[in-house]
Amino acid sequence: MTQRIHPIDVILHKRDGLALTDAEIRAFVLAIVKRTPRRQLVTDAQIAAFLMAVFLRGLDARELATLTEAMRFSGEVAYTEALNTFAIDKHSTGGVGDKTSLLIAPILAAAGLAHPTSEGVPGIVVPMISGRSLGHTGGTLDKLETIPGFNTQLPFPEMRDILKQCGAALIGQTPKIVPADRILYALRDHTGTVESPFLITASIMSKKLAESLNALVLDVKVGSGAFMPTYEKSKLLAELMVETGEASGTRTVALLTTMDEPLGRFSGNWVEVWECVDIMKQHRHPMSRDLIELSNILSGWALYLADHAISPEDGAVLSDEYLRSGEAYKAWLKIINAQGGDTSLFEDPAAHHKPAATRTLTAPTSGYLAAMDCKRAGWAVQRLGAGRAKPGAPVSAHAGIEMHAKLGDKLEANQPLVTLFSEDASLLDEPEAMLRETLQIAPTLPKLQPLIREVITKTNLPQ
Amino acid sequence: MTQRIHPIDVILHKRDGLALTDAEIRAFVLAIVKRTPRRQLVTDAQIAAFLMAVFLRGLDARELATLTEAMRFSGEVAYTEALNTFAIDKHSTGGVGDKTSLLIAPILAAAGLAHPTSEGVPGIVVPMISGRSLGHTGGTLDKLETIPGFNTQLPFPEMRDILKQCGAALIGQTPKIVPADRILYALRDHTGTVESPFLITASIMSKKLAESLNALVLDVKVGSGAFMPTYEKSKLLAELMVETGEASGTRTVALLTTMDEPLGRFSGNWVEVWECVDIMKQHRHPMSRDLIELSNILSGWALYLADHAISPEDGAVLSDEYLRSGEAYKAWLKIINAQGGDTSLFEDPAAHHKPAATRTLTAPTSGYLAAMDCKRAGWAVQRLGAGRAKPGAPVSAHAGIEMHAKLGDKLEANQPLVTLFSEDASLLDEPEAMLRETLQIAPTLPKLQPLIREVITKTNLPQ
Repeated sequence: MTQRIHPIDVILHKRDGLALTDAEIRAFVLAIVKRTPRRQLVTDAQIAAFLMAVFLRGLDARELATLTEAMRFSGEVAYTEALNTFAIDKHSTGGVGDKTSLLIAPILAAAGLAHPTSEGVPGIVVPMISGRSLGHTGGTLDKLETIPGFNTQLPFPEMRDILKQCGAALIGQTPKIVPADRILYALRDHTGTVESPFLITASIMSKKLAESLNALVLDVKVGSGAFMPTYEKSKLLAELMVETGEASGTRTVALLTTMDEPLGRFSGNWVEVWECVDIMKQHRHPMSRDLIELSNILSGWALYLADHAISPEDGAVLSDEYLRSGEAYKAWLKIINAQGGDTSLFEDPAAHHKPAATRTLTAPTSGYLAAMDCKRAGWAVQRLGAGRAKPGAPVSAHAGIEMHAKLGDKLEANQPLVTLFSEDASLLDEPEAMLRETLQIAPTLPKLQPLIREVITKTNLPQ
Repeated sequence: MTQRIHPIDVILHKRDGLALTDAEIRAFVLAIVKRTPRRQLVTDAQIAAFLMAVFLRGLDARELATLTEAMRFSGEVAYTEALNTFAIDKHSTGGVGDKTSLLIAPILAAAGLAHPTSEGVPGIVVPMISGRSLGHTGGTLDKLETIPGFNTQLPFPEMRDILKQCGAALIGQTPKIVPADRILYALRDHTGTVESPFLITASIMSKKLAESLNALVLDVKVGSGAFMPTYEKSKLLAELMVETGEASGTRTVALLTTMDEPLGRFSGNWVEVWECVDIMKQHRHPMSRDLIELSNILSGWALYLADHAISPEDGAVLSDEYLRSGEAYKAWLKIINAQGGDTSLFEDPAAHHKPAATRTLTAPTSGYLAAMDCKRAGWAVQRLGAGRAKPGAPVSAHAGIEMHAKLGDKLEANQPLVTLFSEDASLLDEPEAMLRETLQIAPTLPKLQPLIREVITKTNLPQ
């Protein structure tokens, strides 16, 4: 017989700096999920006190793994094990113009379709659950929903059917997936407990692991556009996520990647789909070079973890082949079709881009594009209408920006720097001022960070 | 124009270990008091997160003084300044058999009546707001309410009239006094944030300072019957309370006093009134010796702070004179009469003691009464019916215990040790077992702590 565990004791133990037992963590998460307005097994105030205690006391690796698992299993999981293949996903901590998901999903789907299992299922499947734009970062779901008819609200059995047929499925979170995180996140947001690397790890990893993955590639952003404020904090988050993923039996690797400027050519919603379709159709715009490189590196790691490549570098070469051969584009069309999307727009994606107002900012002097506050650039994109400051707000399909230069590029005076798009002309002024202020031109070539800063794997975790 | 301060920023600043500004603290307390179910200026979850952040990060002296003042002025204050005399009170952190308030109030009232101001008001007034029993500790209000007709629910204007006439008034807290503490305490109780010396100080001192005091004598218990678990924590609490009182302009002194055994002869409700009436009527029972000594020492400090004595020691001598002369008893009768109490019971208080069941525990062997867990003795008194485990529960007037020996007393085998009283015979067994277990007899004289361990004043606070 087990003693009933009371939420108050869990709070007291964490408050006093003790390591919680697995039973305590599970009992607390259970109380969160099972409570009703009439049966307050645990109150909002108790959850808030627990969150602040965790924020200030931290969690050790075992506690974090148990919390993540308890949250993961608080609702439905994808159960891709039923397909008897290799399930993998990529997750990014969020950036500006970061549309690698739209390339990586079809690349890995193409690889999976090219190498089916003996049961005829793709050898790799990508059960990708994406989020929406918030604050200065974009959201894959908002981008996908600019494709008319595309349905991201699929229950897991339908998702598994699409995985079997297409190798990837691109869906959104439902209230039934990790309900514990929904409750915790809403409270964290207004109790000052958002920025804890432990709570962020549990939130991200519980949702990713609910996809029932064999492996996971994490893109943890560093630099002026990253969510985490310093390199060290991004690295700690990467380490915690790798440790937590591995503890649950999922092979997990994290790449610390530079987010000092918008990734690729466009930032927005439809414009980002357009850019990816162009790449998959072999129209490689020079401004997309960093996007293609990062997508291939991340896909390369995924192909390596799935035993489709002998090394991550070999995987990156293989990834680029799927792009160049048109196999990724074929997989993309298959996925979009299967989820009800209108693929006719991809024939001329530029023609579908219909902003009501456009304005181009030019270089005030000649020199090198030296620096910007990438987070501020992201906020400019949000203010143009492409993003949302609050959950639930609508986003515009055609708002966004097009970068005409990358950091380090040499500029002539009056050369175009960035073009702003909006569906409301009155929304142009503030973002224009924000971008004008943050884009800095210098007489000498600036020192730039490489795209990949560091790779965190199980073997190089701190002991 | 001042920027509006949002509760979330106050939480974030404390979470991150910053000192809060006075404006931030006031805004947070204001939001707590001014919120309504429809206007959630601050949510329970936010208050809980704030409390946990304060618990783990602490408050500096200025923050604690500001929080205490903001709470103090969240409701009605006694405004004894209107009487143009010297207002003083004594407060104890709670003990077993601790009935010093019932002696100190009439002693100081007697002193005040003996030395009126030029306006005819007592030279000292004691606007004493008392609490109820909770857990292992007794409550002055429960003891007073065993006096038929005695009314402790007086609004401040009536209280001031009684102070003017009698020199002391003995009332209970109302919902209008320090409402912020009521809200905070209810949340602390179920969010694991009770035992913070900072939050305890703000809670106690805001209520005491709402009495509009010129001076305050604090009796901070140490030992096995104290609320705080160690000497060091009791001392820290004493220091914080003295610092906070002085910061508000109230002369404050704290005595660290030993609570290793029930104070005096009786522990309970009516039995404690009886013991005090006996003392004030010059019937000094040998078992009351520690109670009389502590009451005189605390009153002595009060008389010294009120400039009625040249030293605390001189004050203690003076205090004993008010007891021995019958002046304190006269003041007591005056106060009880003024608040509607039936003083005829005091003619023969023993006759009014009517427990339904009585049982006496005797010494199993000869030796010295060596030790006890005083907290456990307090719980035995509670279980007999004299106290309450939960706020709002009823208490019995006639339940309690009578000690027949003090720590260090030499005992013969079969000599009476303690008598238990209850209004329900079935309640005797468990407390009897608890007391039998905890009362230890040893062959040699035990090492005992002195009654007064340390005195904390403004001048000996740590810098």
